[in-house]
Amino acid sequence: MAEIYFDNSSTTRVCREAAEKVMEVMTEEYGNPSSLHTKGFRAEQEMSAARESVAQALGAEPGEITFTSGGTESNNIALFGAARARRKRGRRIVTTAIEHPSVLNTVARLEQEGFEVIRLQPDCAGKIAPEQFREAVTPDTILVSVMRVNNEVGSIQPVEAAADAIEAAKAPALLHVDAVQAFGKLRLRPRRMRADLMSVSGHKIHAPKGVGALYIRSGVHIEPLTYGGGQERDMRPGTESVPLIAGLGAAVRALPEPEAELARMRELNGFLRRELSKIPGVCFNSPDDALPYILNLSAGGVRAETMLHFLSEKGIYVSSGSACSKGRESYVLRAMGLPKDRIGSALRLSFSRFNTKEEAETFVRALKNGLASLVKRPF
Amino acid sequence: MAEIYFDNSSTTRVCREAAEKVMEVMTEEYGNPSSLHTKGFRAEQEMSAARESVAQALGAEPGEITFTSGGTESNNIALFGAARARRKRGRRIVTTAIEHPSVLNTVARLEQEGFEVIRLQPDCAGKIAPEQFREAVTPDTILVSVMRVNNEVGSIQPVEAAADAIEAAKAPALLHVDAVQAFGKLRLRPRRMRADLMSVSGHKIHAPKGVGALYIRSGVHIEPLTYGGGQERDMRPGTESVPLIAGLGAAVRALPEPEAELARMRELNGFLRRELSKIPGVCFNSPDDALPYILNLSAGGVRAETMLHFLSEKGIYVSSGSACSKGRESYVLRAMGLPKDRIGSALRLSFSRFNTKEEAETFVRALKNGLASLVKRPF
Repeated sequence: MAEIYFDNSSTTRVCREAAEKVMEVMTEEYGNPSSLHTKGFRAEQEMSAARESVAQALGAEPGEITFTSGGTESNNIALFGAARARRKRGRRIVTTAIEHPSVLNTVARLEQEGFEVIRLQPDCAGKIAPEQFREAVTPDTILVSVMRVNNEVGSIQPVEAAADAIEAAKAPALLHVDAVQAFGKLRLRPRRMRADLMSVSGHKIHAPKGVGALYIRSGVHIEPLTYGGGQERDMRPGTESVPLIAGLGAAVRALPEPEAELARMRELNGFLRRELSKIPGVCFNSPDDALPYILNLSAGGVRAETMLHFLSEKGIYVSSGSACSKGRESYVLRAMGLPKDRIGSALRLSFSRFNTKEEAETFVRALKNGLASLVKRPF
Repeated sequence: MAEIYFDNSSTTRVCREAAEKVMEVMTEEYGNPSSLHTKGFRAEQEMSAARESVAQALGAEPGEITFTSGGTESNNIALFGAARARRKRGRRIVTTAIEHPSVLNTVARLEQEGFEVIRLQPDCAGKIAPEQFREAVTPDTILVSVMRVNNEVGSIQPVEAAADAIEAAKAPALLHVDAVQAFGKLRLRPRRMRADLMSVSGHKIHAPKGVGALYIRSGVHIEPLTYGGGQERDMRPGTESVPLIAGLGAAVRALPEPEAELARMRELNGFLRRELSKIPGVCFNSPDDALPYILNLSAGGVRAETMLHFLSEKGIYVSSGSACSKGRESYVLRAMGLPKDRIGSALRLSFSRFNTKEEAETFVRALKNGLASLVKRPF
């Protein structure tokens, strides 16, 4: 049975380039980059090459890239690190109600530690309005954290408005951008975006799970979250996962040019929207201008888990909300004000450059079959 | 040029079993274990199998194993988590002066936060005496952290004495054992050892860098260090690095029986000690009863970095102190009271099951050549 993997916002298959690099480093360049001998030096070179690649993808300097174990750790380091470094200058943190759990649960913890947390509510399209940042950011705001692309519906947030609001309020705030779902898909320039901190993850762009990076703008000081042997300029100690870091570098180098790939995704997404909108009972939860890699829809009131299992048995993999919420009702769709049965039947399709129109066609047929066999009809 | 890798306490080459498993998971079972479809379920199965293997190696229950990104993170989670969970019951932390930087720098941070830290000093053999724990552990001690095997000299610490001291003082202390250098080499039974927390690392036992585990005894509560999507029972959130975790499982299953391998290591180590002791100016910094996987020696007053480079050019890889101290003078040897020039010329050889007696013979010849060409002779 051919598998159709439409769950790329949960995680992706590792691409050939990254897998081969990981293998090479595990078995040949396996030295510890901190070691002073040739074997260590070569491992250090692997890391440098990867750092250069990630930096280039962000228009950043290599020294601004800290490797981490993934997006969640990047977000934790950024938020705890920024809040603790600036706690003497203010107590206010501004974020949104639809961030990833690794942001929401971290700011909730900071709230327990005495910080004041403002959570901006999205509109029904999953978007925060620019003026909401202007109203929320005060002169004692020390941190603003906003995602570039929402992981459940794909809405694109006005990060620039957050930067404007910080400048307008003359706030001592650092701007953190969770770019996990945007990295490799949209052209990201943290410096131009005026982001001080930006989180990215490897496993959403065909690198292995277990590696990510945090952009820390040169000159920005945040407190480390963990302590150890000084690796990553003391920001993220521990022997570096050279195979995964090198694999991340390879995956980044293998990324297609974002704009060209976006055009292809718009086509795939547009095709699906056209075909699916013909099916009675299907409605879209992703706004029209969402990142086309994500299409969130509700189908005929069938419980998402039920449909998900029906599709899974046919080798088609999608998700209900995000993988991280593991079956709980989506707080993102709830914050968008969607009715309960629409939330309960929401499916997220998320694409990668390896998906094809043929797969989309197969999906449409499968969803029709699913609705035909699962929708309870009146007697 | 054939390479001789005698730096296995810094890091190891990934074994075939682990490398193949990593590759399989990256390219086939690449689902997110939190996903509700078949692809996610199979990833979850990979994790369960690995958890079972690590638990079995520790005589523990699978539910007592939390996967982390490595030894440093395991140590940080254990120490911050224990101290913060118990801070209302006392402020005293007992550890030793020769722990790994990921312990020493973490307790130093806890000291800044108001904890009192006692650092026990080793004797000239790199060992802490049982009575030192008895004297140091008081009824308000909330945490004792001690390594099973020292990473620089291989000395084995009396963890049992630490457990006895906690019981004798009726202290509310959790016992944390950093077993990074012991795991896979000594038979470890945290429950029998009365350890509440135990850190292990993958890349010291031929799993890839970037994965480790923390044993948390069932019923023991510590605070998490990071926040996110609930993975690892909220103790270590973030999408799990399934390839590395599965690779760790495979590496653990490929481990030889510790006692049999120890016998082989004693032979290799004994051979080296006999041959090296014939060379004028060589003395050993590892005690006779050290773990035989590690042999620390000082040679002829030649600066360690100089000898290390000489050997590296011949394809022989050893370290000066630990990789994590990256060329700084060893605080372990200093705490042992060794004279300055002996510290400055200290080399650490560290072995794996893939090393042979032939390699040891080559090393002895190379060291002799190195001394002949590097030792400054009187005019």
